[in-house]
Amino acid sequence: MAITLYSLCGANEARPFSPHCWKVVMALRHKGLDFEERPLAFTAIPSVENGFSKTVPILRDGVHLVADSFDIATYLDEAYPDHPTLLGGEAGRALTRFVESFSQAVIHPAVTRIAICDIHDMLAPIDQAYFRQSRRERLGREIEEVAAGRDAEIAAFPAKLLALRHMLGHQPFIGGERPLFADYIVFGALQWLRISTGSVHLPADDKVSVWFERLLDLYEGHARKVA
Amino acid sequence: MAITLYSLCGANEARPFSPHCWKVVMALRHKGLDFEERPLAFTAIPSVENGFSKTVPILRDGVHLVADSFDIATYLDEAYPDHPTLLGGEAGRALTRFVESFSQAVIHPAVTRIAICDIHDMLAPIDQAYFRQSRRERLGREIEEVAAGRDAEIAAFPAKLLALRHMLGHQPFIGGERPLFADYIVFGALQWLRISTGSVHLPADDKVSVWFERLLDLYEGHARKVA
Repeated sequence: MAITLYSLCGANEARPFSPHCWKVVMALRHKGLDFEERPLAFTAIPSVENGFSKTVPILRDGVHLVADSFDIATYLDEAYPDHPTLLGGEAGRALTRFVESFSQAVIHPAVTRIAICDIHDMLAPIDQAYFRQSRRERLGREIEEVAAGRDAEIAAFPAKLLALRHMLGHQPFIGGERPLFADYIVFGALQWLRISTGSVHLPADDKVSVWFERLLDLYEGHARKVA
Repeated sequence: MAITLYSLCGANEARPFSPHCWKVVMALRHKGLDFEERPLAFTAIPSVENGFSKTVPILRDGVHLVADSFDIATYLDEAYPDHPTLLGGEAGRALTRFVESFSQAVIHPAVTRIAICDIHDMLAPIDQAYFRQSRRERLGREIEEVAAGRDAEIAAFPAKLLALRHMLGHQPFIGGERPLFADYIVFGALQWLRISTGSVHLPADDKVSVWFERLLDLYEGHARKVA
């Protein structure tokens, strides 16, 4: 296979959990491209591709090496223009940045506060030490302090998805009648939450839950198989 | 002039304030189309175009009559495909719905709670009576009760724009290097707040303020002239 996706896992390689890597998994399936996924522990990332990137996803496609999920989506649309579009052209690409910003600025901090200890518990000991220190530096607190607000964060979580819920009254996907990369962006955040905590913490009849289940069903239930 | 835009005003015709009508004003300027704006009081809307729509904007373009700002943007892209695009094609149109949902579900309720009494005060007496009753039916409370949370709502307002602020770290407009209808959607909400209360209630150095000022400058400062 020509394409390799380096993604992120904990002690169990069969449970890759990174939101950014899930965006790319779904993007590659959307494009209909064969690929091999190689999940890495946090501390193993610098050892692949001569330390090309400190973070995953990293995509190797023949001679091409690309990091960052948005850059990878852009690369895939440019390299495979005859396969289904991910970004929907220049205007679509810009508008997708807004969806990414919504996910990163509104959803990711909430998932972090809900799932931080669950994520820690998925890791092997050496990666737990790395995770604890890097999150202390990034968040200015111990992970247990961050997790202290978990119940309140879960209670506040559905309201953060108001814009998506409202939009789902108009159309089944952010991409319209079919999913686009923008769908996979928000999907990645909820898949990260689902895999690390076992739930997306939304009522089953919430329009967002119904949309998320539709995405879990795509591509022979690829994303549903990891739990 | 072939195009007429029916918009919304209070007692002073020179101060049209509806967010949805401002989206269309900016869209028509973006398309480079000449038009005549006819601001109407709330209670005058049923008297134009044989009661075609209960709400404005209403666009009359020759034999074509279109209501709803999003439908008008769609119409303009279809009717004037050689003029600059507003929605960016099929994918862009779907993604723009997400921006619209963000604006309607997150920004509009906040602006309503901040500006409801200011809007009332802009209206002629007959429209004040209509406004008071229609808002009582829609919100289940008197407008003064809604406005009781005004200061708290102003304090909470900057956080509601987090996704847009984050995106502006990547690009100058939601449309990328140039504005698209998605920009005018959020602009309309802030212009509604600016005209009715005299301020957008954001620090001047907030990236969102800087973006808003860029939009006020467009088209010979068209939107800045109304205050």
